[in-house]
Amino acid sequence: MAAPLIQRLGLEKKYAGVVDGVRQLIALPDPAGEILGRRRLDDDFVLTRIAVPIGVLGIVFESRPDALVQIATLCLKSGNAAILKGGSEASRTNAALFDAIDAALREDPALAGALHLAETRAEIQSLLALDDLVDLIIPRGSNELVRDIKDATRIPVMGHADGICHVFVDAGADVAMAARITRDAKTQYPAVCNAAETLLVHEAIAPRFLPAAALALRDAGVELRGDAATRALIEAAPCSDADWDTEYLDLVLAIKVVAGFDEAVEFINAHGSHHTDTIVTADAAAAESFLSRVDSATVLWNASTRFADGFRFGMGAEVGISTNRVHARGPVGLDGLVTYKYQVRGSGQVVADYESGARSYRYEELPT
Amino acid sequence: MAAPLIQRLGLEKKYAGVVDGVRQLIALPDPAGEILGRRRLDDDFVLTRIAVPIGVLGIVFESRPDALVQIATLCLKSGNAAILKGGSEASRTNAALFDAIDAALREDPALAGALHLAETRAEIQSLLALDDLVDLIIPRGSNELVRDIKDATRIPVMGHADGICHVFVDAGADVAMAARITRDAKTQYPAVCNAAETLLVHEAIAPRFLPAAALALRDAGVELRGDAATRALIEAAPCSDADWDTEYLDLVLAIKVVAGFDEAVEFINAHGSHHTDTIVTADAAAAESFLSRVDSATVLWNASTRFADGFRFGMGAEVGISTNRVHARGPVGLDGLVTYKYQVRGSGQVVADYESGARSYRYEELPT
Repeated sequence: MAAPLIQRLGLEKKYAGVVDGVRQLIALPDPAGEILGRRRLDDDFVLTRIAVPIGVLGIVFESRPDALVQIATLCLKSGNAAILKGGSEASRTNAALFDAIDAALREDPALAGALHLAETRAEIQSLLALDDLVDLIIPRGSNELVRDIKDATRIPVMGHADGICHVFVDAGADVAMAARITRDAKTQYPAVCNAAETLLVHEAIAPRFLPAAALALRDAGVELRGDAATRALIEAAPCSDADWDTEYLDLVLAIKVVAGFDEAVEFINAHGSHHTDTIVTADAAAAESFLSRVDSATVLWNASTRFADGFRFGMGAEVGISTNRVHARGPVGLDGLVTYKYQVRGSGQVVADYESGARSYRYEELPT
Repeated sequence: MAAPLIQRLGLEKKYAGVVDGVRQLIALPDPAGEILGRRRLDDDFVLTRIAVPIGVLGIVFESRPDALVQIATLCLKSGNAAILKGGSEASRTNAALFDAIDAALREDPALAGALHLAETRAEIQSLLALDDLVDLIIPRGSNELVRDIKDATRIPVMGHADGICHVFVDAGADVAMAARITRDAKTQYPAVCNAAETLLVHEAIAPRFLPAAALALRDAGVELRGDAATRALIEAAPCSDADWDTEYLDLVLAIKVVAGFDEAVEFINAHGSHHTDTIVTADAAAAESFLSRVDSATVLWNASTRFADGFRFGMGAEVGISTNRVHARGPVGLDGLVTYKYQVRGSGQVVADYESGARSYRYEELPT
């Protein structure tokens, strides 16, 4: 194994942070049991929508030794049972952490066996066939992993595909702000999904903005790749078409000069991964149009893409970031691990009475 | 074609109701664009969660000529594009209705082509492969249709499987109320998913309840099937194990005497389809336990299962009833056809400033 991977697998330095994360999670309100709505249907006849655990989750996650603890405690906090499968490089650490959690669960008969650890890929394949028993699969990992899992199962998958995120510097941008946001979005943590991969620059501002941005980016060690218009203004390697669809996850940035606002929006919707995109501009009308028309889970105005994160959004805990369009989209907090049920409390009501006109509904929203 | 099917395919008698349904839908608030939450992250830095259309829907529906209009208008009201495929028995009616709607859409460039009509099964198979373009499949039809579609696609499926619904008459039930609710749940419209298929009776009340219930049910033309304990109390055909897992959709009711509350809850969770189940009892503690422990989309106390319906729940419009556990569960209103996005309006914020401690978050919930 390469030295950086071995280093990443170590738990000792992360341990205090892991424990702190568990304590923070405990302090959050329980997502299951929350009353989401109440409506009177008629006298002595009330409809309640209440949050409940989804049921049994299957979670496949990356080789980070802190991931098992985080995921296990998120499942328990939300009242779900789960089968967990971590990356094989951390298998012994995962087994030791799991055993400690499992032993604690077995002290309470209601919790004993709520979590299971899968140790082989074959077990995951078996799991994916159990669509009558498993309610949701959450794969954390590569786009390929997510696609392979979707192909192999009828179970709903809450997946996080590529993060091809854009910074668009509009004609009306403050040049210094745009350079600062671009640098943060690209370099603050380049290996993660909400880091920027592509910079789009309005041609009206490119001659002023690009030289300043190039200075800031090169200073941070970023390799620049550009289209012809970009390379006419700054030094950069040539871009191929494939660059527009690539998630570098590294200190590389593709740059394109666009003829106008519409071209930028269309380019992002065509080449982005509907994850996170930002516009830098002083023009409020252009910003609002961008926030409305760019079809991504998170859209920002005058802020770095790196803010697209459950903790930074103030959710208290993060399950992951979803590029799904249904159930949960964007940064997913604990409420992404619950569903709801309808409870109706009546006093003998039958539908025939309402169909015949003997009774009629008297709807009224009630406080939760 | 059988005469009842031909009769069901007729549109003339339903036409006024169809038009009325469209007018009611128009009067409802638009689900897309609703502000679902606002949170200040810091000064001049606000997070907004806003409802947006899901995107492109694929909807496969049954041979009811009124279904096309209802589904097309639900898609338009929620801002979605859709590909519609109706039952082949109604194909000419569907084509005529679709042409009328399509012609109206083409008067507005923003709406032209928002809906498409698929006419063959082969087109549906092609559609299911387009997971990069189609965002949600909604099959309305048999359990087999839903399973076949889930097997053939990576696209999320909002499906409605069997409706095997139970009435449980607990020891503490009012006998007359229990008989009235059982009769309504079974006979008010037996061909639909929220009609009851199985009656569970606590052994302590069975000798008093079953003779009264049998009278009311036979009077309504219901064929009774029962386990040995039931047949010791009333006349009924014998039940096989298969009956407990069968959705009759007809005037047939399977009856079982249970030894107690726990057996009833466990039986429902094992043999039901997690759709809709009701308890009849005067014992509030038993009722609350039932509402909590029965793992179904809709659970009722002292009311008929037939109330599990979007219109009766006061949603104004119904997309269908979902036995999914994620995205939308139970009766689905217009809000089941929207998702959300996060919009962030900043003033130059970068993550590095918050990581370094130069700035810190000042979370505050804001009114929507």
